[in-house]
Amino acid sequence: MATWSAPGKVFLFGEHAVVYGRPGLAMAIQHRVSVTVRKKRSPGRVKSPYINECLGAMGVRATVYVRSQLPSSSGLGSSAAVTVATLAAINDEFGKGLTREEVAQKGYEIERKVQKGRASATDTYVSSFGGVVLIRGTEKKRLPPMNLPLVVGNSRVSHNTSLMVEKVGRERERHPGIVNPILDAIGAVTQEALLQLHDPRVLGMLMNTNHALLDALGVGHPALTRLVLAARAAGAFGAKITGAGGGGCMIALAPSRAKGSVAGAIRTCDAQAIMTTLDTEGARKEKDG
Amino acid sequence: MATWSAPGKVFLFGEHAVVYGRPGLAMAIQHRVSVTVRKKRSPGRVKSPYINECLGAMGVRATVYVRSQLPSSSGLGSSAAVTVATLAAINDEFGKGLTREEVAQKGYEIERKVQKGRASATDTYVSSFGGVVLIRGTEKKRLPPMNLPLVVGNSRVSHNTSLMVEKVGRERERHPGIVNPILDAIGAVTQEALLQLHDPRVLGMLMNTNHALLDALGVGHPALTRLVLAARAAGAFGAKITGAGGGGCMIALAPSRAKGSVAGAIRTCDAQAIMTTLDTEGARKEKDG
Repeated sequence: MATWSAPGKVFLFGEHAVVYGRPGLAMAIQHRVSVTVRKKRSPGRVKSPYINECLGAMGVRATVYVRSQLPSSSGLGSSAAVTVATLAAINDEFGKGLTREEVAQKGYEIERKVQKGRASATDTYVSSFGGVVLIRGTEKKRLPPMNLPLVVGNSRVSHNTSLMVEKVGRERERHPGIVNPILDAIGAVTQEALLQLHDPRVLGMLMNTNHALLDALGVGHPALTRLVLAARAAGAFGAKITGAGGGGCMIALAPSRAKGSVAGAIRTCDAQAIMTTLDTEGARKEKDG
Repeated sequence: MATWSAPGKVFLFGEHAVVYGRPGLAMAIQHRVSVTVRKKRSPGRVKSPYINECLGAMGVRATVYVRSQLPSSSGLGSSAAVTVATLAAINDEFGKGLTREEVAQKGYEIERKVQKGRASATDTYVSSFGGVVLIRGTEKKRLPPMNLPLVVGNSRVSHNTSLMVEKVGRERERHPGIVNPILDAIGAVTQEALLQLHDPRVLGMLMNTNHALLDALGVGHPALTRLVLAARAAGAFGAKITGAGGGGCMIALAPSRAKGSVAGAIRTCDAQAIMTTLDTEGARKEKDG
């Protein structure tokens, strides 16, 4: 029996714009998915297509238990975390000898297969390695760890990442004069954020700008705007949509003393609030049991 | 005794971006300021600096009565409407023989003097001529009239146009890579709106995009965002900040049948709602009395 866990992720800056070659900044969060793998004794049916694919890809039969701190389909990378933790646990339990890079890569292939070609390599990379990750084209670079106290607000409005990505792509074809400069501005916000990672006040303002630009891209949602306004009014340095938008989650960067009141303000809007911070470990072995 | 009135204005598209050479679209609204001018009999003190300047510029002494349907300092061009109506009434009462163009030009000079060089020529032009006006650099062009049922929401949050214009200018110097593409995107939204003036549904979506881009420029305000969300939820085709932002007003383009419910939604947010539409007359003579 082997138990591994892997973290969820948020986009700090640059979601959607990364699809078009602009830089983006993602980070692993301390909320995670734990997966226990036990060599098969009794036949059992596993419901998650991700776990089925992991078992198939690793060529094993096993019983798999999942415990998650991440709401699913909310843009926090729960499917990547399930996939990475499952692969890491199988790798351990069956002595397959994969490196962390190989787990991340195989995880991406599985995500891509299940999501019919539309998955991003960011989620599985961040979940495998943890930390703050700069994405530029297909290149990924881990940045030094920093103090980033976040409150995630889950609007519970269902959304579909690939539909939102397609929507932006359609708008970009129809109105390149509007959409391309918005993508440029988002890229410039990410660049500026890279120079300001030490200053949460400036980062917060840049998050506000990025939020408005995502709204201008057409991936906003009134429920997300309400959460963003509530978080700012409760003392956050800044707040924005995180992930594909159109529903799902927002994040607020808050001074440690204000995290509780920001979370409270989000809950007052009938949303789920998750107080979290940077995870620097990525996939890790847990004690069994 | 002569009574003239002149309309207020809203920016449909492109405020702030027009300062940097991008196109903008303003329109006169049916809400107006009426000014009665009577050759002076008794000495009286006029409080408005605009009216004092008008009297000085025209070289006359007169008693001036003002009745306004426009909230002042809200971005609806009330100072330009007061100035244009006063000049037109003096022109009539004293037989000065100024053309409409000359009234607009003199009005601009007076606005510029009172506002210490910061006035825009758009307000006095639109107030003098009425209609929908395309602004491109110093060029102004009246477009054919169209049906544009608007609800104006006045947040009653005080703001200062020249401070907001200066703020955008400072941000543009500090972060040209962020601000210039936002201005480009706003310009492209206005260009697209010019092609879609017949389609209120598309215009509304473009207004939503313009709103988000103004928010990204840093001229948003939570009270304005709440009014915009409320108007959209109540059935508006789209809604946006109008004018300098940071307070002041928003506008919603609404199907005629939804104007009442949009106005109601705005009032529920403790703001003033003004149902209005396009004015095509500009400055006009009223019956005295």
